[in-house]
Amino acid sequence: MTTIHFTKGQGTGNDFVLVEDPDGRLDLDQATVARLCDRHFGVGADGLIRVVRTARSPEAAGLLAEEPDAEWFMDYRNADGTLAEMCGNGSRVFARYLTEHGLAAAPAGGTLPIATRAGVKDLQASGDGFQVDLGRWRLVDGDVTVAADRGGVARPGLGIDVGNPHVVVLLPDEDALHALHLADVPTLDPAPPAGANVEFVALAHPPVVDGIGRIAMRVHERGVGETLSCGTGTAAAALATRHWMGDGAPDMWRVDVPGGRLAVRMFPAEDGEHVALGGPAELVYEGDIRI
Amino acid sequence: MTTIHFTKGQGTGNDFVLVEDPDGRLDLDQATVARLCDRHFGVGADGLIRVVRTARSPEAAGLLAEEPDAEWFMDYRNADGTLAEMCGNGSRVFARYLTEHGLAAAPAGGTLPIATRAGVKDLQASGDGFQVDLGRWRLVDGDVTVAADRGGVARPGLGIDVGNPHVVVLLPDEDALHALHLADVPTLDPAPPAGANVEFVALAHPPVVDGIGRIAMRVHERGVGETLSCGTGTAAAALATRHWMGDGAPDMWRVDVPGGRLAVRMFPAEDGEHVALGGPAELVYEGDIRI
Repeated sequence: MTTIHFTKGQGTGNDFVLVEDPDGRLDLDQATVARLCDRHFGVGADGLIRVVRTARSPEAAGLLAEEPDAEWFMDYRNADGTLAEMCGNGSRVFARYLTEHGLAAAPAGGTLPIATRAGVKDLQASGDGFQVDLGRWRLVDGDVTVAADRGGVARPGLGIDVGNPHVVVLLPDEDALHALHLADVPTLDPAPPAGANVEFVALAHPPVVDGIGRIAMRVHERGVGETLSCGTGTAAAALATRHWMGDGAPDMWRVDVPGGRLAVRMFPAEDGEHVALGGPAELVYEGDIRI
Repeated sequence: MTTIHFTKGQGTGNDFVLVEDPDGRLDLDQATVARLCDRHFGVGADGLIRVVRTARSPEAAGLLAEEPDAEWFMDYRNADGTLAEMCGNGSRVFARYLTEHGLAAAPAGGTLPIATRAGVKDLQASGDGFQVDLGRWRLVDGDVTVAADRGGVARPGLGIDVGNPHVVVLLPDEDALHALHLADVPTLDPAPPAGANVEFVALAHPPVVDGIGRIAMRVHERGVGETLSCGTGTAAAALATRHWMGDGAPDMWRVDVPGGRLAVRMFPAEDGEHVALGGPAELVYEGDIRI
């Protein structure tokens, strides 16, 4: 038995167990992570983040050649204990952890690069939280039809890839969004080979205020079900809505998800347009568990 | 802001935040309890238990006249922050807390009385856990028809009161039990005025071994949905099955619930037959949260 000290954090209701392991000494196998993330028998979370020095992590150390300042590696695991490449809200909570625990300076106006399995990501302080540059994105070719809401009509969906696959569906208004029954898995036709997260979006009234687009969203995450928030899904929802809105649509978006409010920003970068996600990220409590 | 030290405990997957407040100084209002029990923004639990001396609790102190040894009061709150009378699995975890933290001697062969809003309850150590005497129970008159499992057949249910109302439904076998779709609220006809928890039961093969009856159960708790376990529901399921089995049916039962295995025992007491619930009860971790 070992006692593990952990911190619980959350960003718009996506919640994480953070375990500090600077020298990479901790061997958290899949079963242990699954137990820690179990909401009734363990601590409970959407995922676990091991906070480890990039140089001390064999799988991440190579990233230091690209970005020597990416001192910390976000070793992200899904709630079932499997490895994951990246998690948008998780990276924002990771930045909060690093700065609040004095492992990194708060990036006042500057950038805090972090290492992830999806490469180096740039974090910035924003308002009361953190913003992460999710990098490039792309439209996915081909129409997808989405059937959700048991017995409801099938609707057209737009495929968006933000490192992971999404299909976004526009609903007529916020009432339709709130009435949606998302206990069942939406059916996609044709079904993407690796599945997709499905975001349902409604425009706010008015949809654009002071150059900022405003939408509300609910999300069904593949393999999980409806969740309070999904970082990349929020970005995909804003990107799809901008696409539908056409010329003159804003590059700044306010997205209301069940767990809170996020900001999405599209901006030009050297390698093409990037999309960034900002919003609250907080540390909720600390604990000790024997495993 | 105050920092609250807490312990997280669970019994067959029913989980609780325990807060020690021996002198009754802590004012945990409904919103604070709801936030602590929130699984994404707080600690997360099915309920909160404040551990307070009976003598220091105005609403419980009167119980000391009846049972001067009931030194500790289980101030139980539902996850939404409302007050609750009693919780079977919660009382077993409460006994674990008292003994493991040295607040009460482990009742080796003896009885540990605790004060609850439903009166004094007797706890005993049993195997690797604790057993609680839930007291008297009664059959509820009148047939109830239960429709569950979207599109499935309506089945007869038996009403059992174990301090709170239950309706128990017998299914043909464990396959039918596992196939049951419990995402929807079962429909009861006639609907009990205060609603009811609904237990679905299947006999094991063989149903009785060494004088112990064996069933598996799933439960839909009113106002909550399907849960991993329900202490009084487990007792109701065993009582109903004994009733259906008729003469010669055992008074000891092993009940498998999604969160583990519980033991139910019926025994004569001064005021009529009592039913007791035993099984695992453990403390999972400790933490500190600022509220």
